[in-house]
Amino acid sequence: MPKLWGGRMKGKADQAMFALNASYAFDCRLYSQDIRGSIAWTQALHQAGVLSEGESSTITDGLAQVLEEFQTGTFIPVSEDEDIHTAVERRLTELVGAVGGKLHTGRSRNDQVATDFRIWVMETCDGLCRQITNLAGVMVDHAAGNLSVPMPGYTHLQPAQPVTWGAWLLAFVWPLCRDRKRFEQVRASTAVLPLGSGALAGTTYPINRTWLAETLGFKHISQSSLDAVSDRDFALEFLFASATLGIHLSKLAESLILFNTREFGFITLDDAFSTGSSLMPQKKNPDPLELARGKSGRLIGNLTSLLVTLKGLPSTYDKDLQEDKEPVFDSADTLLALLPVLAGLIHTMKINPEAMGRILQSELLATDLADDLVEEGIPFREAHAVVGRLAAAAEQKEKTLSTLSETDLEAAGYRGNPAALRSLTVEKSLARRSNIGGVSSSALSIQLEAARAALSTQRGG
Amino acid sequence: MPKLWGGRMKGKADQAMFALNASYAFDCRLYSQDIRGSIAWTQALHQAGVLSEGESSTITDGLAQVLEEFQTGTFIPVSEDEDIHTAVERRLTELVGAVGGKLHTGRSRNDQVATDFRIWVMETCDGLCRQITNLAGVMVDHAAGNLSVPMPGYTHLQPAQPVTWGAWLLAFVWPLCRDRKRFEQVRASTAVLPLGSGALAGTTYPINRTWLAETLGFKHISQSSLDAVSDRDFALEFLFASATLGIHLSKLAESLILFNTREFGFITLDDAFSTGSSLMPQKKNPDPLELARGKSGRLIGNLTSLLVTLKGLPSTYDKDLQEDKEPVFDSADTLLALLPVLAGLIHTMKINPEAMGRILQSELLATDLADDLVEEGIPFREAHAVVGRLAAAAEQKEKTLSTLSETDLEAAGYRGNPAALRSLTVEKSLARRSNIGGVSSSALSIQLEAARAALSTQRGG
Amino acid sequence: MPKLWGGRMKGKADQAMFALNASYAFDCRLYSQDIRGSIAWTQALHQAGVLSEGESSTITDGLAQVLEEFQTGTFIPVSEDEDIHTAVERRLTELVGAVGGKLHTGRSRNDQVATDFRIWVMETCDGLCRQITNLAGVMVDHAAGNLSVPMPGYTHLQPAQPVTWGAWLLAFVWPLCRDRKRFEQVRASTAVLPLGSGALAGTTYPINRTWLAETLGFKHISQSSLDAVSDRDFALEFLFASATLGIHLSKLAESLILFNTREFGFITLDDAFSTGSSLMPQKKNPDPLELARGKSGRLIGNLTSLLVTLKGLPSTYDKDLQEDKEPVFDSADTLLALLPVLAGLIHTMKINPEAMGRILQSELLATDLADDLVEEGIPFREAHAVVGRLAAAAEQKEKTLSTLSETDLEAAGYRGNPAALRSLTVEKSLARRSNIGGVSSSALSIQLEAARAALSTQRGG
Amino acid sequence: MPKLWGGRMKGKADQAMFALNASYAFDCRLYSQDIRGSIAWTQALHQAGVLSEGESSTITDGLAQVLEEFQTGTFIPVSEDEDIHTAVERRLTELVGAVGGKLHTGRSRNDQVATDFRIWVMETCDGLCRQITNLAGVMVDHAAGNLSVPMPGYTHLQPAQPVTWGAWLLAFVWPLCRDRKRFEQVRASTAVLPLGSGALAGTTYPINRTWLAETLGFKHISQSSLDAVSDRDFALEFLFASATLGIHLSKLAESLILFNTREFGFITLDDAFSTGSSLMPQKKNPDPLELARGKSGRLIGNLTSLLVTLKGLPSTYDKDLQEDKEPVFDSADTLLALLPVLAGLIHTMKINPEAMGRILQSELLATDLADDLVEEGIPFREAHAVVGRLAAAAEQKEKTLSTLSETDLEAAGYRGNPAALRSLTVEKSLARRSNIGGVSSSALSIQLEAARAALSTQRGG
Repeated sequence: MPKLWGGRMKGKADQAMFALNASYAFDCRLYSQDIRGSIAWTQALHQAGVLSEGESSTITDGLAQVLEEFQTGTFIPVSEDEDIHTAVERRLTELVGAVGGKLHTGRSRNDQVATDFRIWVMETCDGLCRQITNLAGVMVDHAAGNLSVPMPGYTHLQPAQPVTWGAWLLAFVWPLCRDRKRFEQVRASTAVLPLGSGALAGTTYPINRTWLAETLGFKHISQSSLDAVSDRDFALEFLFASATLGIHLSKLAESLILFNTREFGFITLDDAFSTGSSLMPQKKNPDPLELARGKSGRLIGNLTSLLVTLKGLPSTYDKDLQEDKEPVFDSADTLLALLPVLAGLIHTMKINPEAMGRILQSELLATDLADDLVEEGIPFREAHAVVGRLAAAAEQKEKTLSTLSETDLEAAGYRGNPAALRSLTVEKSLARRSNIGGVSSSALSIQLEAARAALSTQRGG
Repeated sequence: MPKLWGGRMKGKADQAMFALNASYAFDCRLYSQDIRGSIAWTQALHQAGVLSEGESSTITDGLAQVLEEFQTGTFIPVSEDEDIHTAVERRLTELVGAVGGKLHTGRSRNDQVATDFRIWVMETCDGLCRQITNLAGVMVDHAAGNLSVPMPGYTHLQPAQPVTWGAWLLAFVWPLCRDRKRFEQVRASTAVLPLGSGALAGTTYPINRTWLAETLGFKHISQSSLDAVSDRDFALEFLFASATLGIHLSKLAESLILFNTREFGFITLDDAFSTGSSLMPQKKNPDPLELARGKSGRLIGNLTSLLVTLKGLPSTYDKDLQEDKEPVFDSADTLLALLPVLAGLIHTMKINPEAMGRILQSELLATDLADDLVEEGIPFREAHAVVGRLAAAAEQKEKTLSTLSETDLEAAGYRGNPAALRSLTVEKSLARRSNIGGVSSSALSIQLEAARAALSTQRGG
Repeated sequence: MPKLWGGRMKGKADQAMFALNASYAFDCRLYSQDIRGSIAWTQALHQAGVLSEGESSTITDGLAQVLEEFQTGTFIPVSEDEDIHTAVERRLTELVGAVGGKLHTGRSRNDQVATDFRIWVMETCDGLCRQITNLAGVMVDHAAGNLSVPMPGYTHLQPAQPVTWGAWLLAFVWPLCRDRKRFEQVRASTAVLPLGSGALAGTTYPINRTWLAETLGFKHISQSSLDAVSDRDFALEFLFASATLGIHLSKLAESLILFNTREFGFITLDDAFSTGSSLMPQKKNPDPLELARGKSGRLIGNLTSLLVTLKGLPSTYDKDLQEDKEPVFDSADTLLALLPVLAGLIHTMKINPEAMGRILQSELLATDLADDLVEEGIPFREAHAVVGRLAAAAEQKEKTLSTLSETDLEAAGYRGNPAALRSLTVEKSLARRSNIGGVSSSALSIQLEAARAALSTQRGG
Repeated sequence: MPKLWGGRMKGKADQAMFALNASYAFDCRLYSQDIRGSIAWTQALHQAGVLSEGESSTITDGLAQVLEEFQTGTFIPVSEDEDIHTAVERRLTELVGAVGGKLHTGRSRNDQVATDFRIWVMETCDGLCRQITNLAGVMVDHAAGNLSVPMPGYTHLQPAQPVTWGAWLLAFVWPLCRDRKRFEQVRASTAVLPLGSGALAGTTYPINRTWLAETLGFKHISQSSLDAVSDRDFALEFLFASATLGIHLSKLAESLILFNTREFGFITLDDAFSTGSSLMPQKKNPDPLELARGKSGRLIGNLTSLLVTLKGLPSTYDKDLQEDKEPVFDSADTLLALLPVLAGLIHTMKINPEAMGRILQSELLATDLADDLVEEGIPFREAHAVVGRLAAAAEQKEKTLSTLSETDLEAAGYRGNPAALRSLTVEKSLARRSNIGGVSSSALSIQLEAARAALSTQRGG
């Protein structure tokens, strides 16, 4: 079986060049998309009068058999199969004879591979949306079960104000909702059929492209054949959505790694999601979280990779575009491996409210104290300065805000009611933050419902 | 005037540390957004009963004056102005006295800066959409004026099949349409109001956040205060949309640079968009195109920059987030400088149909010849092989496909009608590609209308 | 004054195009390098017989005056100064008349800018090496003062084995030594003179390039004029060395941010290197460390930026190369701002040995216990398993390794001497790690001297 | 066989977590380095008195057998083999019994994997240096065979000045020399032995690390155990050297792709290094060059990937570091596939001097003409302006510089000798650029020898 493009060449392709050029090793995973695309194309050729009823049936049956061979693991590639398209057509022709050579009528590998790849991306977006929804759902459930457990909220990794475990965990659900929306938008961007664009100038046959689009799950058909064969925006968008999700997972992982330290002690991971050390018998390491953090590297690297490849390419199809698939496959595989593990890890982890409580000291109520002074008519900026001096005094005297003596208060210029200071509590602090998005119980209940609604109403919910 | 956060600190900030920390040098360009946000906040505080009518008026008037100082270039920053927020509040207090210290009641720089930045991004998306539309419009006009001028189409930068100048240029309009849609989606993602989230736990005052959102041009309000102060997805999306637009511009530029070479000679740039050489008097260089290609580097670099900064940050606000603005500003400035220059360059360039015609030789009709054989019932794969041998023979004998002798045809196994081969023309080749997206006159007219419709119906058209 | 390249062009340059094209806004900081290079070039032209003694003196004096204008801030750019080279030559000609037009004889902006930029990079490498050495020196001093203070060592952010503060801090000195070496290598790579390469084909005058190289501080002269005008490897190397240093600083910063949390409490930052909160009066935030961590983003982004710009450029000089300077300037500025602040921060921070001690519990001696069992002849893998079971039992019973009862020991299959277990101490654990690189006092003393030697013997020490 | 770290854990590892965590799929290619490292470690343990002569022999023999199994493809991994270290120790213990459990005494996977990886990188640097030298050698030979064939030199992709094919191709040899030097520096940076650092605190056994270093091919031993287990600078350096080489290959490829177009026609690729089209029978595509250009994407992406992974990691070993290997392997594989193909492609390509000559028109001699005027005493800047006007006139009148009439010359203000203008030739233009690095025959002969010397004297030559 000669290469698909063999006629013009006199010399034999250099072996190393052929190996460099071949893409079967990675694009073979498009076999299902390729064969489904070819079956649709066969039917379209028949509708267009290019293939007879019999030819169409023969080719379709042959393709179905090739698909089955792939699905059952019995397909045997040969060394000349430079890509999945060649492999499928080669095997088809072995099965059905010369009529198999009619399959490629009116199309090019340029529009064919773009079609295959888009179908794969659309289907993978669906799979990722399901996994994101699953992880977010586990987080919502965990938040719901601990909605009002007080914990210290941090900015700059310094204790700032009281929040709750539920508020903290829900704060990671919204990024996931945005991630899911992005993948849905990627799916929509991808759903533009390139098939029928030929190599670059369009097909010469009266193919019904609209029928092809519907059959293969596309929403639109491309308007420019030259653009269609070279457009890889959808792949960039997929890689960007993946990188951004990776950033979110890295932030979640970083926070949980910190909370899982001996020093914070806010959470305990289940043994099933921890690993040990080959040297230190006592270790219990949060490996999955570290990988979730570290794998943001490859997700960003994959995005960079395709951006660089596309930079400065002249129109229309250039072989450089063959480099589009591996980063997309790798990002998808990475996320599909990470997301369920993180869901399991969060589902099984325990929180330690007591450890959280140890940090919830009166310093975290400093803003509340300043707000109290504001209510007494003192401009916020002045109130801030007074409470700042109180905090400094407390640190210096190794007291807390609420145990400062009246002398201390006077020295700091505190003109408020000392009783107000004494009566500051975490509970009151939480309760007064009842505006939308805040950490009071009522606000959090509303947020919880909003999160649940967001997860169930978005596509793929 | 002390720093906004000065109360707690006993020592003086190290000078180098202060310089490192300060952001006024770049965030001063948010002055308008910051002041408009503060005016709305003042009104909201008044509505919430925190500020009296008089206090609200005084502060609002003071802020209006500060805004005017910025707009007229009379605002004088002082060395303690570490950021735009500090500068505005400092100047306000100078103007209106201690009541200015009430402005910051109930909010934090964390929610304030996120609000300012989002307003800026939304407004900049609008500006970019206008510029993209303008460039695309110029391209559509240029395409319309040369819709059916035949030119060689390339794949792998080798002449492949006849296309037209209109088809070629329209192929760059669709990516711009996608770019504009992306910026519209970024705008929509950005239109979520963080104000009212405080430092991280929400505000304690009964602020009407929905009113604030409407007043400041937001579509939604954030649901989680902890997420709101740290979410920079919108900035990532902006940088990604910019990088992708940059990729498209780099491809357009690369193609035009090639077409502008002595060797291709397809286009002639206007002198107004060319530059000379300091050494070589005869040179006429396509500098703007080279910059359009080269500046894809900074657009991708800016995206990488923020992705890296965000990677692995613990929730919620960390100072690292201050690094979010400069890359966004730089990408916006870059594109707002490039887009009008490219529009001018394309508007004024001339095409040279004769040079294009020199490449439009019969080799580009090889696919058509194969299609002709297919119409005679020969499987495409076999037709492809025959025509491939003809092409090789033509190259070897320094003939063209249409000047091969009958002996040559026989030697290559050509069983078709020699007359068919002789009658191949560029015109017929173009005309038969009449399917949607193809390069026939009729298909291109439809595409042209579709492009015009896309540009006028999208937002910002 | 016309543009340097004005003769050939009939039309006026488009204003927006000119603005896009101009580089004076950023390359003006090369004024010193540019003028020194021009003075040397003037002398070389004189030596080559191209300029008379008088012309050479006139031009040299004029250039000296332009330099002084820059240094004293009295240089006034005009709108036609598209770059620093144009600005200098324009001003020179104003000062000395038409003879100034002889300066550019035999050279091109292509070799001129490459020369200027290389001088700047070499000088900046020197400055960075000094700052790196300074920071490393501060760290060595801090380590020396606390060499054997026990602290918990971490892997996976879990307490692993006892180390010391000195060992911990010295572990960050070696990366800095590698960074310094990298900048020295960058300097060496940069020290290849391009001047004399003309636009691309070499100069036609008998310029003594070796003399030029020595005069301007270069070690070698370029061997290929075509390579010399387009080679930007040195800029990539500079950006890579900067990004890698940025990674090291981000890791140092991350660790210190953790150690500075309320929960770890291992260090206390001086007020001079902390900042407060605009809302929360009690906050004391480690902003400089967060910026050191976050600015790794721009350092990596800058590297990406130039890599992308260079990708796929055809030889030799293309205007895209103008994009080489801003990322290099920004990376240099970033590091020159960060390094002294970090040195000050480390110099003034306090460590809290007591807090470190609280984590130094017997679990961290588990490896030592396993090693003890190995000494009794038990294979390490079996010893590891036994001690692992002991650790699990201790956690379950809320005991420590050293307070497990003999029944507990038996249940875990511990066959060693209970006394050995009881006698485990942090001190013994540290002391037995006396191999090179280890954490015993003796090993650390040797390491300290090695670090001091490394800092003093490398260039720039 | 339990996992190496099994003792402490009560629960079973989650299956998905285990799959995520396992690295055998990619680190199995370190089998040779791992086993050689373990054999050396076994001997070092024996020297240190930890293993008896017999134990040492047994383990060494067992390891040799495991190595053979890998080399002959008979090694059978089991599902519990989470990494290559586990796999080797598991198999060793199967072969030699419980004594195999003594191998891991005194070391950790942390220092073990760092050692394995460094050996692999050193060996791969050697392989890459050989391939770079080979490619550069092929280029030098091609240049030598066409040293003085005139061709147009380009800047901004516009014809600028005459150069020669030899000069053009040699300009790509010097970047390769720099690349090779970089890989040699990477090798030197990598040659620091981490083994003996344990998990992070050093080994407790009197291992002779200097002997280990010599045995395993290292030049130095690490000075800080904490640094040694986490230092991945060598991997970053490898990825940077690879990315920079990738940039150079992308530039070479871009230029050759252009020269191989129908329009330039400067080179003809051998059929063995071209491919055809599945649709267009006449096509002959430069796929290997396009891949060489496009694969710069993954080389830069891999660098980004590891930079991001390392960003912000706390000291010392974190699981994130497991992400270090795949990008390094991929960059190495990419380059080792590309380099020989490019060598073959260049070795077999033909140049077409006639096509080059068609562009070598008198415009390219404009600088020479200006230089002639300078020799007559006219300041260069004025000469430049005059010749610029001549070039404009020539373009307008569709003449060349040398066919302009005397009237034309006068109109442009040309005061030089018309004969000088008429006598401009490419040959004279080349000959006068005889300074070092220039394009005269004599300068090129010197450059050629310098390039040959550089290739033969650098290590690996």
